[in-house]
Amino acid sequence: MPRQLASPDELNTWSPGTLPGLLGIRIMAVEEGRVTGEMPVRPDLLAPNGYLHAASVVGLADTVSGYGTRAHLPEGARGFTTIELKSNFLGTALEGVLDCEATLQHGGRTTQVWDATVTDRASGRTIALFRCTQMILYPR
Amino acid sequence: MPRQLASPDELNTWSPGTLPGLLGIRIMAVEEGRVTGEMPVRPDLLAPNGYLHAASVVGLADTVSGYGTRAHLPEGARGFTTIELKSNFLGTALEGVLDCEATLQHGGRTTQVWDATVTDRASGRTIALFRCTQMILYPR
Amino acid sequence: MPRQLASPDELNTWSPGTLPGLLGIRIMAVEEGRVTGEMPVRPDLLAPNGYLHAASVVGLADTVSGYGTRAHLPEGARGFTTIELKSNFLGTALEGVLDCEATLQHGGRTTQVWDATVTDRASGRTIALFRCTQMILYPR
Amino acid sequence: MPRQLASPDELNTWSPGTLPGLLGIRIMAVEEGRVTGEMPVRPDLLAPNGYLHAASVVGLADTVSGYGTRAHLPEGARGFTTIELKSNFLGTALEGVLDCEATLQHGGRTTQVWDATVTDRASGRTIALFRCTQMILYPR
Repeated sequence: MPRQLASPDELNTWSPGTLPGLLGIRIMAVEEGRVTGEMPVRPDLLAPNGYLHAASVVGLADTVSGYGTRAHLPEGARGFTTIELKSNFLGTALEGVLDCEATLQHGGRTTQVWDATVTDRASGRTIALFRCTQMILYPR
Repeated sequence: MPRQLASPDELNTWSPGTLPGLLGIRIMAVEEGRVTGEMPVRPDLLAPNGYLHAASVVGLADTVSGYGTRAHLPEGARGFTTIELKSNFLGTALEGVLDCEATLQHGGRTTQVWDATVTDRASGRTIALFRCTQMILYPR
Repeated sequence: MPRQLASPDELNTWSPGTLPGLLGIRIMAVEEGRVTGEMPVRPDLLAPNGYLHAASVVGLADTVSGYGTRAHLPEGARGFTTIELKSNFLGTALEGVLDCEATLQHGGRTTQVWDATVTDRASGRTIALFRCTQMILYPR
Repeated sequence: MPRQLASPDELNTWSPGTLPGLLGIRIMAVEEGRVTGEMPVRPDLLAPNGYLHAASVVGLADTVSGYGTRAHLPEGARGFTTIELKSNFLGTALEGVLDCEATLQHGGRTTQVWDATVTDRASGRTIALFRCTQMILYPR
């Protein structure tokens, strides 16, 4: 179990130049077993059909879950990789800000399972329910 | 069943200014029940951990599947929305081009199910196996 | 929104002779947006590898979610069918009783999304996290 | 890579007294990277709503995939466990026999990914598309 969690500022320094930076994602809070982040909706995060693109929502959920994993790596681990993810989409948003809360559901030595919920800040409505499995990597 | 499928050029005109444009995705071919696309790997499609970001791969797979759905909408439909997706990640790529092939697995009046496989063009190795359900929308 | 929810006894009368009966599942409580059930672990619910079979766990989670859907059908609906389900397995149990709590995450006119958590009663440990999409059917 | 695959008869001896036996599943063929099985539809495999129960279909798909994993364990492995699965349901069957073909999509040292397709033998129609991740276990 992690003794000293990384701070949001520390995690956010990793984003510029990578996908979280491209999508405009910002980590807001890091606690034991819980990480939150936000992403303002922009026209270039929408799909050609005019709704929020499913992959933008997955981008937010998987990024917040990934930073959560990074913050909760077991001792001796050198990193992780997402081996699978699943998402159900319950709503959309064409403007405003999306909030994401990721919670650690299983923290094993080999895998971590994270749940993430994406909501529309203005209405409080759920946009997506997301779950992923992270494989923890160790030095060979 | 669609009589006249949209051409890749026609579909690609929808991408600029939306997520497919942001990620650099291009539709290559459209056939009955099958659509292919490509996405060059760029540093800002990677995750902070240095691997390809899962959401970039989902972005490619969901975009190609979405254009496939658009090209195969039943008569009378006005659009569609992704209600759920799942992806397994089998490999990574840090450069080069990703190819995606999406195939229609179920073409109903209410839903379509698409499978998509993402591969690394240079090595031919599978990067991800993706599957999604599209809800078909009709005028009310 | 349902006005009068079916009682557990009423739902349990549907089980004999069907899969819920074969697996020994019993509905325990039905409330607005929440249904619970139980399934005693038996040797013939295990997999050949000696662990609880993933499909036994899915059987419990999908049955409780299905009875939940039946109890919450929108007015005018004649039934439903599961169009997709996803489950992550976090633990196992070789004896005792499994508890399942299913909660309605999305109650639309066309689809319902249910989450279900399966736990080992003795230890309180989570066995599985499950989510499914139900398509609501109407008379043609 | 497995040198000598287990035969169907050998695998079927593991089923009596476990869930595959309860559901009436029989392994038909085992080849490199591919295993097939069958399950006759019985009234007690249906759901209370009169359709095939989603968990019966998952039972067939996960069992055939599991025997496939057992037949393809890497050298030194002592077993495996299903860590996640997903299934989409495209059709139903109320009688007759279901066929299942499972194919190995990823055979790593730590995980295997299997795809399984369930079809109605009489009509040849697809009943379900299934995918799962197996965690390979080694002696500690």
